[in-house]
Amino acid sequence: MGGDNAPLSNIEGAFQYFKENENSSTEIIFVGNENDITPLLSKFSEFSSKISVLHAPDVVNMDESPAKIHRTKPDSSMVKSVELLKDGRVDAVISAGNTGALLSSSLFLVGTIPGIRRPALAPFIPTNNGGFILCDAGANVDCRYIHLVHFGIMASAYMEAFLGKKNPTVGLLNVGSEEKKGNELTRTTFPFMQEHVNNFVGNIEARYILDGKVDIVVCDGFIGNTVLKFIEGVISHMMTWLKESINDHPISRLSFPLMAPAFKDMKKLLDYEEYGGTPFLGINGIVIKAHGSSTSKSIKNSIISAQKICERELIKNIGERISAHLDLMDDFQNEQKS
Amino acid sequence: MGGDNAPLSNIEGAFQYFKENENSSTEIIFVGNENDITPLLSKFSEFSSKISVLHAPDVVNMDESPAKIHRTKPDSSMVKSVELLKDGRVDAVISAGNTGALLSSSLFLVGTIPGIRRPALAPFIPTNNGGFILCDAGANVDCRYIHLVHFGIMASAYMEAFLGKKNPTVGLLNVGSEEKKGNELTRTTFPFMQEHVNNFVGNIEARYILDGKVDIVVCDGFIGNTVLKFIEGVISHMMTWLKESINDHPISRLSFPLMAPAFKDMKKLLDYEEYGGTPFLGINGIVIKAHGSSTSKSIKNSIISAQKICERELIKNIGERISAHLDLMDDFQNEQKS
Repeated sequence: MGGDNAPLSNIEGAFQYFKENENSSTEIIFVGNENDITPLLSKFSEFSSKISVLHAPDVVNMDESPAKIHRTKPDSSMVKSVELLKDGRVDAVISAGNTGALLSSSLFLVGTIPGIRRPALAPFIPTNNGGFILCDAGANVDCRYIHLVHFGIMASAYMEAFLGKKNPTVGLLNVGSEEKKGNELTRTTFPFMQEHVNNFVGNIEARYILDGKVDIVVCDGFIGNTVLKFIEGVISHMMTWLKESINDHPISRLSFPLMAPAFKDMKKLLDYEEYGGTPFLGINGIVIKAHGSSTSKSIKNSIISAQKICERELIKNIGERISAHLDLMDDFQNEQKS
Repeated sequence: MGGDNAPLSNIEGAFQYFKENENSSTEIIFVGNENDITPLLSKFSEFSSKISVLHAPDVVNMDESPAKIHRTKPDSSMVKSVELLKDGRVDAVISAGNTGALLSSSLFLVGTIPGIRRPALAPFIPTNNGGFILCDAGANVDCRYIHLVHFGIMASAYMEAFLGKKNPTVGLLNVGSEEKKGNELTRTTFPFMQEHVNNFVGNIEARYILDGKVDIVVCDGFIGNTVLKFIEGVISHMMTWLKESINDHPISRLSFPLMAPAFKDMKKLLDYEEYGGTPFLGINGIVIKAHGSSTSKSIKNSIISAQKICERELIKNIGERISAHLDLMDDFQNEQKS
């Protein structure tokens, strides 16, 4: 029931998935108000063996306070779907609803992968150079070094599972490239990244993140969310501006029809719908947060993504990688005590 | 001697200023190696009454450690020019050199305006909606709330002096618009901004900063520097990308000549050279940091900017505004002690 276009887009996305993946053994449970959902299913009767509905009369709103949502809205579609994951009845949950509420119910009901302190958001940002993963993009507004190191380890495993890219490069978002540059957090984090993160290539300045210099950009969630929102803002701003500038010149206006194929290419590349949602890395199960304004295409791609990271055992893989670095956790805890 | 194009651009910028402002009573001292500078002055003999040279044989390099530069390089053009300001022999210093070294020598030799703890960088970012000031853009990578409040107060005074815009709107860069959103720093800062900063309009998300919603964006220097560098990166990235996309389509390629006037408009608007350098707000004198790659145009505009904020008594004005909020400083100091 979450997202601006729910439940229709969510349902249509699922059916698009089935149409394009006829041999898939995936089954889908629509969790939400059955009075709203059931009528929408009639035209997809060909797939009726693969779907079911779990009635959940309540909806978590976008402006709702996320803490303890599992207690305040136990009959919401969000909480009920996360419970399915908790009970092992599904392999993955996809939601386009309230991010904070989804995170808090995932944390409380499913918990984190052993050794992980903070789950993180890791959206894939498409660019003309192949794109990158930004982690954390907003789940943790105040971080310590251990969280950033975990973000690097988890995002690395995720990129391998999601895009099949082996041993991706990892950079630490910073205001300069030298090791000693940055604020207290990045300066403290740098040596731990060197020690614990595969293929850590050092600090990366914001001006270069779109250039494909690294596959994964690690940062705290406050700065990651700022960068993510700024990307959204700057792209729409630049396109509007370009169109205005063109419109200001009668001669440039003639170029609109000529430009159409180029604009279409850019739009396709910038289209986050192509990549579906982003998982909460660190939750001990697959929870995918789709964009609030997700269309059916984005939902379909979120299902594909969930299937892929499930088949490639991302959760287990993250668990193994984190276990290999438990000394980091010990050091951190000793430091907290002292 | 600082900057990629020094000393030629710096000298030519000064002479462009004189040519365009014949009645100006401004006098300029070129501080640097007189063996390099004097030969370049010969073709500008018409202005010889308005210029002089102060010999400084050393140069601070761009990669030099900035701390204590006033001790390690006392004969550098940078330190010698800041000393002129300290001794009251000039009203303003302009440099395109090492930012950290300029800041540290300004701090040590000239000091801050009484009540100010941390000077800040406040560049003007031009957009098609009029542009905004970003403060702090990189001088302070770790901040407390009092610094952010001071950035708001100082940037407000600067915008009035620099652009003549009365009572500009001030926003706090944050990951959400609600008061309780954000990290520890922004949540703590919000009520102090409300209490102490004129025309504070609340939190502003990164996606809206280019839309002209606020005149001044306040943030810590780590995030400000990230945003600043990202703007530089994203603009060049988008333009390259657009050109590549156009090139991929023979029909779109035909549009290049038609697009030229529109591209020219955009380029002009994005041109930071138009606005000269940025002052170190909070230093007890006018020190303007011009971009390292400044051309003569940027230097000329930095001189105009220095003249304007000097005539409009920016330093005195900031001092008065800060004095009106000394309770903020007292509270902060008591809190530090407790």
